[in-house]
Order: sequence, then C-alpha cells, then structure tokens
Amino acid sequence: MMTTADPLACDFEAFARVARTRRSVRAYQPDAIPDEVLDKCLDLALLAPNSHNLEPWQFIEVRDPAKLARLRILCLNQLPAREAPHLIVAVARPDFWRMGRRLMQAAIESDAPGMHLPEDVRVALRAKYRFIIPMIFQDGPFHILGPLKRFILWAIGLFTISWRFDAGRAGQTLWATRTTALACQNLMLALRAAGFDSCPMEGFDEPRVKRLLGLPGPARIVMVLAAGRRADGGVAPLYRFDRTLYVRRV
Amino acid sequence: MMTTADPLACDFEAFARVARTRRSVRAYQPDAIPDEVLDKCLDLALLAPNSHNLEPWQFIEVRDPAKLARLRILCLNQLPAREAPHLIVAVARPDFWRMGRRLMQAAIESDAPGMHLPEDVRVALRAKYRFIIPMIFQDGPFHILGPLKRFILWAIGLFTISWRFDAGRAGQTLWATRTTALACQNLMLALRAAGFDSCPMEGFDEPRVKRLLGLPGPARIVMVLAAGRRADGGVAPLYRFDRTLYVRRV
Repeated sequence: MMTTADPLACDFEAFARVARTRRSVRAYQPDAIPDEVLDKCLDLALLAPNSHNLEPWQFIEVRDPAKLARLRILCLNQLPAREAPHLIVAVARPDFWRMGRRLMQAAIESDAPGMHLPEDVRVALRAKYRFIIPMIFQDGPFHILGPLKRFILWAIGLFTISWRFDAGRAGQTLWATRTTALACQNLMLALRAAGFDSCPMEGFDEPRVKRLLGLPGPARIVMVLAAGRRADGGVAPLYRFDRTLYVRRV
Repeated sequence: MMTTADPLACDFEAFARVARTRRSVRAYQPDAIPDEVLDKCLDLALLAPNSHNLEPWQFIEVRDPAKLARLRILCLNQLPAREAPHLIVAVARPDFWRMGRRLMQAAIESDAPGMHLPEDVRVALRAKYRFIIPMIFQDGPFHILGPLKRFILWAIGLFTISWRFDAGRAGQTLWATRTTALACQNLMLALRAAGFDSCPMEGFDEPRVKRLLGLPGPARIVMVLAAGRRADGGVAPLYRFDRTLYVRRV
C-alpha cells in the first residue's frame, strides 16, 4: 500500500475532479489570472513529455492591449476570444530542434547538476544528438531532402521492421504539433486545478496570427487558448458518445 | 473564496504532484493494471476537449498474447515496449468525422437526456452539422477536393480575415492528431494519479502496426503507450531548459 510518505502517491479523485470539471468555457468573468498562478500553470505545461527532449513548443501570452484586441478579431471574434481576459497562443515549433539539440549537447557534456550520467549512457546520448537527431530533422533548404528520406524509409520498410519517423516538412509539423498538444492539455488541466478555466480554439486566421506575433514559416499554431474565470452559462452540455466506439481491447 | 462544497474547487497541489511525478518510465514491474483502473483512466482520457465534438480518436489496448508479442517487436523492442505489461495504441481517426457527425445529429434531434437545448441553439447546431462539418471534412475520393479547398481558403484570406481550417488529407491528419494527443496526455496523467506509469513511444513501424490492428488508411498512430507500475531505475534524469526560451509575454 502507498503511504503519504511515498513521493509517488497521488490522489486519483482529486485528479479526476480536475479532468471532469475542465470544460471548454465560452463565457468569462473579467478578472485576470494572477501572474504567479499563470506561471505555475505554464511550468506544469512544460512538464509534458516531449520526444528527444527537443521541446518543440512555445506559449505566447498576448498582453499588449493593441495586439490582444487584434488577436481577438483574428480568432474570428468568437465568444471566448472576445470575453476571456487572457489569450495564450500555443505554437508548434519544429524549427526548435536545432536549439534543443544544442542545449542537450551542452547538458550532456557539462553533466548538468543532478544528472550523474553513467559513462556508457553519456556516450550513447552523445552519439544520438551528434548523428541521429540531425539525420531525422536536417532536411536541407525547403525540406528538399524530405521526399528522399520518406522514400528511403519506405524502401527499408519493404524488407524489415523499421522506424518510420516523421520525415520532411509535414512530418516535422505533425511531430511538433503532437508534442505541443500534450503540453496544451497539461496547461488546461493546471488552470482548472488552480480554479480557472480555458477554451481551446481552433478557429482563427493562422497566417495573420503568425504575422501579428512575428512567427517564422515553420511555426504552426496548435490552438489559441482563452483563459480566465468562468462565468455562469459559459459551458455547453457535455456530449460524449459510447466509449466502446473509441476504446477497444484486442 | 472557494469552499469544499464548491463543485468546481480543485486541489492544485494534488494536480501538480500528478503532473510532476508523471515521467516517461522505461522499466516496469510485471504486475498488470486492474481492468477497472484502466477503464477509469480511459474514461478520463476521453474527457479531453475535441473540436466539433467529433471524437476523432481511438485507443486500442492490445491484450492478445500473440498480438502483444508482435507489437513489442514492432515498437523496435525498445525497453518500455519489452517490459511494460500493457501497450495501448493511440490512434488519430480523421475518418471518424462521419460517425461523430451522425451521432451529434441524432443527439441534437433527440435532445439527449439533460441537454435541454434552447430552440435557437438547436437550430444553429443543426445547420452546423448539416452543412459546415461536411464542408470542412468532405473531400471526395482520395481527398481530391483538398487542394481546391486550400486554394479557396488562401484566396479568401487575401481579402479578409477568415478561418483557415485544416483542409485536405494532411490537414485532417493534423487535426485528428492534435485532438488525440490531448486525450493521450489526460490518459498518462490519469494513470499516474492512479499510481501507475507510462511511456509515450514514437518509435515504431507504423504501417506494420496498422496492419496488425487492421486499421484503415486514414488512421494514424499518434503514439504507443507503454503502461504499468514503474520499477526502480526506470526514469531518466529530467531535462527542461530555461522556460523563457519557450514562454513569452508580448
């Protein structure tokens, strides 16, 4: 049995309450989320798993009144975009792989505090970030090598079981989007746990939002998150269909 | 102040503990997760937000010993795939939009228990699922209309602020992957809250896994989740780089 002294012991019902009360909230009270609360939630968001530890994600909270007013319009003026005191843009950044690689290489070499990597692990990690990561993500200008990589992966797959990694521009977008979405869910739950609410919005003018925020070409907006404290009537009825349609055991 | 009688009151520290202790666990004890626990966790996973309520996700737990042995190999025999008592395949199902649409239409018309939709909302929802949803997702055979839709969205965007929805095959894949990833994070956290652990794996032979599970063409595997109870030494050091690299306020 777990005891309260167990550092891994968690309270399932407390978590379930967070997951159950997290709803896409459309109407908000005007009061802001305190900075320290939002920071704590964002820190928890960044604890989501991310492949190869390359952290291909970015969260941009738009505070500047002019930018915020414009962003509300670029989210098509939908109710949560209009009402929520905060709008946070979650961005997939496949191009961050270079920065993440550099940071990982530095961390491995410096044996960052508390890592205590055994020498064989260090050698394996060194090789991974030196050779494997560029092999996956280095596509040349305009992802010109992407189709070639996909062809090679396909050809190898004809003969043997092999890893079909997400190659090329579309693959990298998919990869970074997946990882960023994991962090988004953490963020929405963290906000709920802190007594606040959110609404993940997919309806926006992506090219114009990217221009507003000065985001480069490879960046893709995963969602714009409206956040604040829920107002009465801000939640639609919950529809979820029979779980057996979505969960199988084989 | 919130009181414990407040149905929306949550315990932030209890949630933070779940989010912090969730790590990608590579070594597992052999004991299984009880069915009722796994079911509760999957139910919480399906409470993640999903756009238009179309639930484009599927979770397949592989139990059959022969299939499971094969799946471990198709996950390239990596440590968590080899050791974890459970492997759950998270699948993005863009093709589920048709089923979701049909179910939503039936729910709207029948005024499913507890919905109490006001008449104007019902009319709006009816129009949405009758016209808007097919406009977004209906691409004709082989997504032949996808490029045309993208062109139209681009052309409209030249003149006005407008919604650039994810059109075509790649867009629908991205859309369903994003939504499924949100549910994956819920699932990993729910497992942790229940005292268990998981490892999201991206390294697998996707075409062969799809064949093993009889999944159709449009299905895309978001991750294979190893799950069970963590064994000593199953967790690597946590690397996260300076938050200011990933969180901005503008």
